[in-house]
Amino acid sequence: MDKYDLIVIGAGPAGYKAAELAAKRFSVALFENAFAGGVCLNEGCVPTKSLLHTAKQYYAVKSFAVPGVGAAGAPDWRKIMHNKEKQIKILRAGVTKGLKDAGVAFIRERAVILGKRDGLFEVESPSGRVCSERLLIATGSEPVAPPVKGLDEAMARGRATFSSGALDIDGIPETFAVIGGGVIGAETAAMYAMFGARVTLCEAESALTASPDSDCRALIKKTLERLGVTVLLSAKVNEILPDGIKVSVAGEETEVPAEKILVCTGRKPRLTGYGLENLSPKIERGIVCDEYMRTSVPGMWVAGDVNGKMMLAHKAYREAETAVKDMFGASEKMRYDSVPSVVYLEPEFASVGACCGEGLKEYVFPAAYSPRYVTESAERDGFVKFVVDPVRRVLAGAHLAVPYASEIIGAPAAFIHMQTPLGEIKKLCFPHPGVAELISLIPDEF
Amino acid sequence: MDKYDLIVIGAGPAGYKAAELAAKRFSVALFENAFAGGVCLNEGCVPTKSLLHTAKQYYAVKSFAVPGVGAAGAPDWRKIMHNKEKQIKILRAGVTKGLKDAGVAFIRERAVILGKRDGLFEVESPSGRVCSERLLIATGSEPVAPPVKGLDEAMARGRATFSSGALDIDGIPETFAVIGGGVIGAETAAMYAMFGARVTLCEAESALTASPDSDCRALIKKTLERLGVTVLLSAKVNEILPDGIKVSVAGEETEVPAEKILVCTGRKPRLTGYGLENLSPKIERGIVCDEYMRTSVPGMWVAGDVNGKMMLAHKAYREAETAVKDMFGASEKMRYDSVPSVVYLEPEFASVGACCGEGLKEYVFPAAYSPRYVTESAERDGFVKFVVDPVRRVLAGAHLAVPYASEIIGAPAAFIHMQTPLGEIKKLCFPHPGVAELISLIPDEF
Repeated sequence: MDKYDLIVIGAGPAGYKAAELAAKRFSVALFENAFAGGVCLNEGCVPTKSLLHTAKQYYAVKSFAVPGVGAAGAPDWRKIMHNKEKQIKILRAGVTKGLKDAGVAFIRERAVILGKRDGLFEVESPSGRVCSERLLIATGSEPVAPPVKGLDEAMARGRATFSSGALDIDGIPETFAVIGGGVIGAETAAMYAMFGARVTLCEAESALTASPDSDCRALIKKTLERLGVTVLLSAKVNEILPDGIKVSVAGEETEVPAEKILVCTGRKPRLTGYGLENLSPKIERGIVCDEYMRTSVPGMWVAGDVNGKMMLAHKAYREAETAVKDMFGASEKMRYDSVPSVVYLEPEFASVGACCGEGLKEYVFPAAYSPRYVTESAERDGFVKFVVDPVRRVLAGAHLAVPYASEIIGAPAAFIHMQTPLGEIKKLCFPHPGVAELISLIPDEF
Repeated sequence: MDKYDLIVIGAGPAGYKAAELAAKRFSVALFENAFAGGVCLNEGCVPTKSLLHTAKQYYAVKSFAVPGVGAAGAPDWRKIMHNKEKQIKILRAGVTKGLKDAGVAFIRERAVILGKRDGLFEVESPSGRVCSERLLIATGSEPVAPPVKGLDEAMARGRATFSSGALDIDGIPETFAVIGGGVIGAETAAMYAMFGARVTLCEAESALTASPDSDCRALIKKTLERLGVTVLLSAKVNEILPDGIKVSVAGEETEVPAEKILVCTGRKPRLTGYGLENLSPKIERGIVCDEYMRTSVPGMWVAGDVNGKMMLAHKAYREAETAVKDMFGASEKMRYDSVPSVVYLEPEFASVGACCGEGLKEYVFPAAYSPRYVTESAERDGFVKFVVDPVRRVLAGAHLAVPYASEIIGAPAAFIHMQTPLGEIKKLCFPHPGVAELISLIPDEF
């Protein structure tokens, strides 16, 4: 039986990052029964961004968003999907090469944990058994379907899908219903609408849940509506009909046309199918861990979605780094207060840190204070919101509803992480013209 | 004679920013004989970005950069210029309103300094005389024309123009020559080429000067060439011909077709026409100042291009803030090592801090390490370069050749400014997928 210094189960962002880093000092076996890169790269964030990018360009032309630039014909769906597939293949090959270069034993098989014997974890896969003192669980998460009459059948027939299915389609349907108004729901609704589908989004809560900030949530709704999406809030989906879905909105039942249906009402940690029960770690929402990513089982760490914390790839990377540092004896604590989250619409919505609350003050500035925003945006209702701690004189949160927000949010996230004094932030220099200039509006006098 | 706490001459980025800030405690008179916002807003960076944004969108469609999105017709030039004008008017009104709200006396007249009497600067304009204990010079810069046979005449007839003229044209010429390969030359050449002109760029040096980094300079050249621009290096322009220009390249004379010509061989501080000689400050390249923006004349400060340092609007803002802080008695030193600079092509090129040199190490990573870059870019030769000080373990410079570089560079600039330990940078979290993720590649082991 081959013995490794570390066994990693799952080659998504947490797993492959951890394996690569750990391989600097350890022998590492990494198991994955699907593709390297996990949901994020193969059927989640990355292909979504490919299609969203195309959708935005297509829509900008079609809607004459740039005055003087002419109209486009129908999108060529075959080329669009081919382009996306090609990109994902390149990226997947990059991950696989990274693992190979690092010297990781990458085993493309389903792994099952047999248990811990004489201080060694034993893991079995079709090609044999391996053991190790250390085990990292990075098995990710899976979508959850709500109990709706007729949904199982619609999913079986492919008419209803989870998010991965919505990225891999033959063409844009005429009508499209999205069940769930989180990040996936908002982005997919926007994408289909930009490509020309008539989209209805149903959210059970009284506001979209895609952003932690209430003003962002409101502007996300407005942005979707501008694209032609019908947004139904407080909407309970009751039944899947042959050519639509039955929804109650504030007690009144209505029918929504839906040739295709996306179900994105949440995801849950993946806890079964790989012998976790043979170790019986403490489990709450996901596998419980401390701030070094240690689980209740000595020698076993966890990183990524499977711990049930924020389900974000970049959070998974940081957890992977944190776990491996702990294995190396150079422990540093994982922090969640400076992990940003993004909704990739137009504008983009990026948030990090706190929303306003007791002892905090918030300041909102129109994005139109940025000349670049004015020259590039047809709309004028973007904004930036900064939440400051006026006593400690540091930034506590930032909520950006502007183009490029995903690329800008790293700076406020850094200021929160490093507890940069507001007076120091005021001394920084951002390029003019740029949207990031708006960071200079963070106040240091109250 | 009205007496103010501060007189500011020039309402460009330095002047209007200083006037607005100073008005929190001072009575301020601000003189400007052209439009509020200066060259940057009215005839420089900002209208350039408006046209570049349109040009990029147009070109993306025309060149099928997004597979599956159809071709465009000819650009509608009247609409494009109207759109740009409308945006500049909105922004200009914003600057004027900001000044008014701050309580600044904004006098749209040419001001002439008469001298200093009894500790008070006296300034005259058509509507009368004002005086003040403090004076801030923010008169900006003006373009310089090289001594070329026939150029004066071509400029008089409007066939050759400085940068402002190149933004305000009736239509795209068939052939266009650019004299000077700095930022303005590179951006304008790209813009005209994307709109369909046959462009030749002539640079006297052996490399383009648009970026401080040699790899960036090379990729800027390649990027221009990809757009169809003919780039001539070591090219001396000898004469303006009726339908072209005569150029020697490495000793060989050749003719370049040029219906229109842009002259962008540099700018010089604006030192005449406003009575500066009546105060006789120390002048070298521009008005000499210390790190608090104080000139050799007591009570007189300087900010922006007129001091002859980096000619960048965001540098001007920081200098304005520095000068006003000094007037308020809360002095802080101006720093230039963390001022970024950008070339707004596709990709964007953004630099901050040092290039590699003695005692420094540089690390270059392909942009294709970013999944977002791969999903959004047709090309694959973007890169990021980080210059680190391995002894002090801090970032010394960053040179980014990637989409969104202008919005991303603020973070490395902040790390340089704050001397953030490399180990701390490694703990930061950037959204995935994003181009800014590439910052996580900054090494902390050498």
